[in-house]
Amino acid sequence: MDVINLSAKLAGFDGHWAPRVVAEMNDYQLKVVKIRGDFVWHAHADTDEVFLVLAGSMGIAFRDRTVHLSQGELLVVPRGVEHKPFAEEECHVLLIEPRGVVNTGDAGGDLRAENDVWV
Amino acid sequence: MDVINLSAKLAGFDGHWAPRVVAEMNDYQLKVVKIRGDFVWHAHADTDEVFLVLAGSMGIAFRDRTVHLSQGELLVVPRGVEHKPFAEEECHVLLIEPRGVVNTGDAGGDLRAENDVWV
Repeated sequence: MDVINLSAKLAGFDGHWAPRVVAEMNDYQLKVVKIRGDFVWHAHADTDEVFLVLAGSMGIAFRDRTVHLSQGELLVVPRGVEHKPFAEEECHVLLIEPRGVVNTGDAGGDLRAENDVWV
Repeated sequence: MDVINLSAKLAGFDGHWAPRVVAEMNDYQLKVVKIRGDFVWHAHADTDEVFLVLAGSMGIAFRDRTVHLSQGELLVVPRGVEHKPFAEEECHVLLIEPRGVVNTGDAGGDLRAENDVWV
């Protein structure tokens, strides 16, 4: 039961689009991730997914629109909805989702990150 | 699927120790709460609970120690563990827990807030 400093956790790794787990709550995980550039279109068939911007700004493209998130803003992407996160400049994000969710969902590809990696 | 600005949500209500729901993810809720002073000792028998400090600083007393959280820090209080949040100055907190969790857990009392109130 340790205090988790999100900035310190983010300072503890490099690389983009590779989420790191910082805490577990029941069967959910809180992950931090650094993003820059374009991710892949994907969906998570079985779960909603929370994006909370900790620093910087990002966008999430949907098939019918694009939303923009700045620091202190969050969005819940509903299960099964295709989305493509992106960021022009590096952006730091807190993800909340059940244990076992893979970052690329149904898509796979080069940006698929190893799951359940802690920092 | 709206962007949720946490500061704007916090500006939308007054009062302490009365969590407001801002979003749902699966069967979980994200709540913002303003705290000041001492809460009651209580536990949640069935669930862990996340405290993430958005502004200010707070403490959480446990029976064997006290931890302090500042902005950008989080703690997961494990299920069944007695705790008593407190803050000398007003502090803004994001809570993450399953839908239906009552703020005072097993304790009740005057600080028991109505559940599932959105802002």
